[in-house]
Amino acid sequence: AEAGVPLQLSEGQEPAGVDSLMGALRQVLRYSTRTSHPLFYNQLYARVEPAGLAAEWAAAATNTNVHTYEVAPVYTLLEGEVVSKMASLVGFPEGSRDGLLVPGGSASNLYALHLARHRAVPESRARGLAGGPPLCAFTSGQSHYSYTKAAALTGLGTDNMVAVGCDARGALVPAALEAAIDKAEARGQKPFFVGLTAGTTVTGAFDPFKEVAEICRRRGLWLHVDGCWGVEEADSFAWNAHKMMGVPLSCAAFMTRHKGLLQAANSSGATYLFQPDKLFGSLDIGDKSLQCGRKSDALKLWLQWKAVGDAGWEARIDHCVALAEHFEAALTHPRWRGAFELVMPRSCTNVCFWWVPPSLRPWRCGEGAAQRQRDALGAVAPAIKALMQAKGDAMIGFQPLGSHPNFFRIVFANAWTTSTEMLDDLLTRIDAYGMQV
Amino acid sequence: AEAGVPLQLSEGQEPAGVDSLMGALRQVLRYSTRTSHPLFYNQLYARVEPAGLAAEWAAAATNTNVHTYEVAPVYTLLEGEVVSKMASLVGFPEGSRDGLLVPGGSASNLYALHLARHRAVPESRARGLAGGPPLCAFTSGQSHYSYTKAAALTGLGTDNMVAVGCDARGALVPAALEAAIDKAEARGQKPFFVGLTAGTTVTGAFDPFKEVAEICRRRGLWLHVDGCWGVEEADSFAWNAHKMMGVPLSCAAFMTRHKGLLQAANSSGATYLFQPDKLFGSLDIGDKSLQCGRKSDALKLWLQWKAVGDAGWEARIDHCVALAEHFEAALTHPRWRGAFELVMPRSCTNVCFWWVPPSLRPWRCGEGAAQRQRDALGAVAPAIKALMQAKGDAMIGFQPLGSHPNFFRIVFANAWTTSTEMLDDLLTRIDAYGMQV
Ligand SMILES: Cc1ncc(COP(=O)(O)O)c(C=O)c1O
Ligand SMILES: Cc1ncc(COP(=O)(O)O)c(C=O)c1O
Repeated sequence: AEAGVPLQLSEGQEPAGVDSLMGALRQVLRYSTRTSHPLFYNQLYARVEPAGLAAEWAAAATNTNVHTYEVAPVYTLLEGEVVSKMASLVGFPEGSRDGLLVPGGSASNLYALHLARHRAVPESRARGLAGGPPLCAFTSGQSHYSYTKAAALTGLGTDNMVAVGCDARGALVPAALEAAIDKAEARGQKPFFVGLTAGTTVTGAFDPFKEVAEICRRRGLWLHVDGCWGVEEADSFAWNAHKMMGVPLSCAAFMTRHKGLLQAANSSGATYLFQPDKLFGSLDIGDKSLQCGRKSDALKLWLQWKAVGDAGWEARIDHCVALAEHFEAALTHPRWRGAFELVMPRSCTNVCFWWVPPSLRPWRCGEGAAQRQRDALGAVAPAIKALMQAKGDAMIGFQPLGSHPNFFRIVFANAWTTSTEMLDDLLTRIDAYGMQV
Repeated sequence: AEAGVPLQLSEGQEPAGVDSLMGALRQVLRYSTRTSHPLFYNQLYARVEPAGLAAEWAAAATNTNVHTYEVAPVYTLLEGEVVSKMASLVGFPEGSRDGLLVPGGSASNLYALHLARHRAVPESRARGLAGGPPLCAFTSGQSHYSYTKAAALTGLGTDNMVAVGCDARGALVPAALEAAIDKAEARGQKPFFVGLTAGTTVTGAFDPFKEVAEICRRRGLWLHVDGCWGVEEADSFAWNAHKMMGVPLSCAAFMTRHKGLLQAANSSGATYLFQPDKLFGSLDIGDKSLQCGRKSDALKLWLQWKAVGDAGWEARIDHCVALAEHFEAALTHPRWRGAFELVMPRSCTNVCFWWVPPSLRPWRCGEGAAQRQRDALGAVAPAIKALMQAKGDAMIGFQPLGSHPNFFRIVFANAWTTSTEMLDDLLTRIDAYGMQV
């Protein structure tokens, strides 16, 4: 009954009947990772919300591209509405702001770098970078790797996306940034961009916004924030609604306070698509985008916002923060006698921790353990995770960072259905897995 | 009953109840353009297919990212399967080919330019383009605007994406390409990339593949084809399954015959995501992508392929070609006494035509009409289209091209439910609209 169809698309593939196709879909659901489970903490996204999902289904059914108003009137208006709501929360002034939904946070960081360059060296759009000034950009050593990808793709070069030093929590050190800028200028480079992070991927650290904003203002650099809520002086901002907000993947916004720059940097004025002499042509938003066809990601965010309301978002985020607080407190409780150790104090809803084998306790991460001991601890998280995967237990990611060997990073992304009791039980189980490895 | 909720996301937005949310979704469906209607010919996509839509819904419900195998085991395998099926149809050898699903054909062309540069100047990834050799790329004057966007974004510069001349049908002239390459070299530039089009956006022209492949081989240039079926000697290939195949938007593949180059050009080796010491880490495909989070576009293509079968795709495309043939023959029929005029003979399933007002008949497009007459004809298509939009009649795009004033481009993209009778009736109605404007 559950047969489905073979995975392989063979040569001369025959058509399959509706029953087999339905069987195949059942198999897909069965073997897919349960990202909406209350114990899925593996990434920065989690549980998908019903209103957002219903909207995603409706948008898929209408199957259209948000390049022109005539084929996507509703989605064009809704995109304007969600972008302007987010931009106003970020604090960008109404008259001058602009923005787009883009396929992910990585794309958003790419837009930022691209626009900043366009503002700094507008002639590079036509002439290219060869023969132009040697540009230089800055981000923290713990920023997301999409900054590096953007540096490679845009022709800036990854060497010229300087990784600035961070403090113990993973936040950029402003004095180190200023020194890096000086050094670049001394090398004859032209600094133009600083990419901050408000909630880093691994430790959830917030780069110090005010200090860096002051540096950028003083030195005339574009300030982008890869991030979250409420930042006013940035030139651009990346907001991922598919993470803490639980909107179906992907749903990401790029926003800038510089109206007109998306158009200036990206416009191609294709006459087959953006005809000036058609009805409502002035409402087309597609010429600002790097994409041509672009599925609508606005409806799901819009409908979910309507479903949840402003106060609802606050309550959800408060719930996630409370869970993170609880988890952090629970694992440092004396009853565990050092079985769990925090890597660093929590900044956001990421909690970074080790389970420490008895032979390595007490583990003091600051105190320079021998390499042999680091290696031993670094092997623990992968082994525990493999056991958890075999059991179908919670999913939690791990990684090394600097001199820290592999540690777990539990993240409360959209953990609306997770209770503190579940977390207490989880710690007990992790301890039991640890004793097995 | 149909009330829905206001468009605006107000300050302090209150949550709305399920009934209002459902009402809002009904309004969205009601006011959205009917892209699955048999008379929607406005773009290169059309009717969404049930199997693909069901799969898209299932994929949305499982809400995961195809960056790592552990969170997307099924979608990772399915992506491998659809990409390899398409790459084998394109003729790329099994051992060396590689590819990814990407968010649109524009992204696919961007990947091509990026990889070609990586192969030509691998050190540019780290060092950037400033101070490097002045690169030069080539595409036809009628290629898609995404080539220009890619030139701007990658730092090549739009001036260095040379637009090569086309023949009357819109296909690139190989001798003009060779001359343009010579000229670039004479200027001291380093040619590295040729982007062909197999089915141009407006006229559906096929650039002459064999001749250009020979030029690229001889001169050591990367050959990319933005296109459709069955091309063997290209270095890379862009295939949009959301166009003729009717898979829900967006569904686009980038393929290359150079295994390892996606990894070399794009890898960041993020240790928080692509841990070498986790289970099944070698199956992760995310490090080859420019994106980090990436929704699954594989399931819908896979399931629809299973539903339609290889022969089914052929039958669908044959149906579209037959419709285009019928339409072309019907509008040139003597019974219209010159009311309709072909802009050029059909190359693909695009038919480009004018409705000519009686005062301008007979219209001979080759014969150099006066500017006043061109202007008069150019105003006709927008006026007819506006009337059709007001009536809710067929949607057909228009645009000018070179010296041709605005003409209609009807495209049979996934016109599975369109009959030749519908087309005959449509011509009659267009003629009637024309007499009104
Ligand atoms: C020839 C060609 N290439 C590329 C594209 C861009 O595809 P997408 O809209 O998926 O970015 C189009 C879109 O119409 C096209 O016609
Ligand atoms: C801080 C940060 N920025 C950007 C991204 C990339 O977002 P996306 O996966 O939507 O491309 C991530 C992903 O985890 C992130 O943590």
